[in-house]
Amino acid sequence: MNIGIIGSGNVGGTLGRRWAGNGHRVVFASRDPGSEKTKKLVSEAGANARAGKPSDAAASSEVILIATPWDAAEPAVRAAGSLSGKVVIDATNPLLPGLAGLAVGCSDSAAERIAKAAAGARVVKAFNTVGANIMSNPVFGGGKVAMFYCGDDAEAKMTVGGLIAELGFEPLDAGPLQQARVLEPFAMLWISLAMRYGYGREIGFELLRR
Amino acid sequence: MNIGIIGSGNVGGTLGRRWAGNGHRVVFASRDPGSEKTKKLVSEAGANARAGKPSDAAASSEVILIATPWDAAEPAVRAAGSLSGKVVIDATNPLLPGLAGLAVGCSDSAAERIAKAAAGARVVKAFNTVGANIMSNPVFGGGKVAMFYCGDDAEAKMTVGGLIAELGFEPLDAGPLQQARVLEPFAMLWISLAMRYGYGREIGFELLRR
Repeated sequence: MNIGIIGSGNVGGTLGRRWAGNGHRVVFASRDPGSEKTKKLVSEAGANARAGKPSDAAASSEVILIATPWDAAEPAVRAAGSLSGKVVIDATNPLLPGLAGLAVGCSDSAAERIAKAAAGARVVKAFNTVGANIMSNPVFGGGKVAMFYCGDDAEAKMTVGGLIAELGFEPLDAGPLQQARVLEPFAMLWISLAMRYGYGREIGFELLRR
Repeated sequence: MNIGIIGSGNVGGTLGRRWAGNGHRVVFASRDPGSEKTKKLVSEAGANARAGKPSDAAASSEVILIATPWDAAEPAVRAAGSLSGKVVIDATNPLLPGLAGLAVGCSDSAAERIAKAAAGARVVKAFNTVGANIMSNPVFGGGKVAMFYCGDDAEAKMTVGGLIAELGFEPLDAGPLQQARVLEPFAMLWISLAMRYGYGREIGFELLRR
């Protein structure tokens, strides 16, 4: 699969490296594809990765991951050009400064705003509920970390469910895109436990069933 | 411990029966303590349980559980009289009709509103994140369901942490009362998975650590 990564911080970098390692062709989007940071990322990700302008990353990929800070997400989506028909994975969280909470939610979500900004795109919310360290390895002894995803396009969700499963998560369909209104606060729970309330970043949730 | 239960539906009924079974003295609050429903509940809960008016339940208990529907919660708190100094466990979720989402949150929470309505009370948010069926038995094979609690009074939180642990949950301190802004959406995630998106009610989250 051709995967474009918009936002190559911890989350975008980790997922891009792992997907490239799994054999997907990954384009790391950068306004300056020749920058040292981008070159380093591409070299770490190996032969399946390259750098490109955001519009190039978007045009050449069936699947585009948005993993920028929230305040950069809507401008980045617009800078990418038309995403109509693309599978867009929204991994952002609309965090307030100092991780004080969420700037969007309950009656709205970052994902719904992304979907509005990316007219025609098949947006799936995913990869927002744990830190990049868990994305590196979501297996804890006998337990598998749950990765929820939600969206309004069944085929796009199947694609994203596969990308989740291949990284070792348990992919869990949480319903339509509007469910981002609960998945974004769920991310805030992980973030606040990990960063503020003493649990540290090596935590994750497993869904138990009986 | 003397525990008053305000709201004796599935959640309040289950917790009251279990705590009475564990040896606590439980008062089920009812505007009509002689009603058939209340008498049945008290008889199921055994010798440690009785019924009482809300003001009686509150006055005679160190710990008061609020487990009413959200639209009844603030009036019920006011009807209970002074809760100053009491440990008040808020197990409510501000659900919109049809489980469509949360009516309060992100920049506010049911718990913070309860705390405002119960002047001087030491409010702890807890028992809102899973269904009553899980409260009956939070153990799944080898896994224990996580029960988060949050509040601003350390001693009240210790008390509630103990009440959580004795039921078989893993008690997890999620920080100050404002964290109800993420625990209420977390509850919405459980509710939506269980009731709308095909997972059923026999699910729970375990916190994995490494």
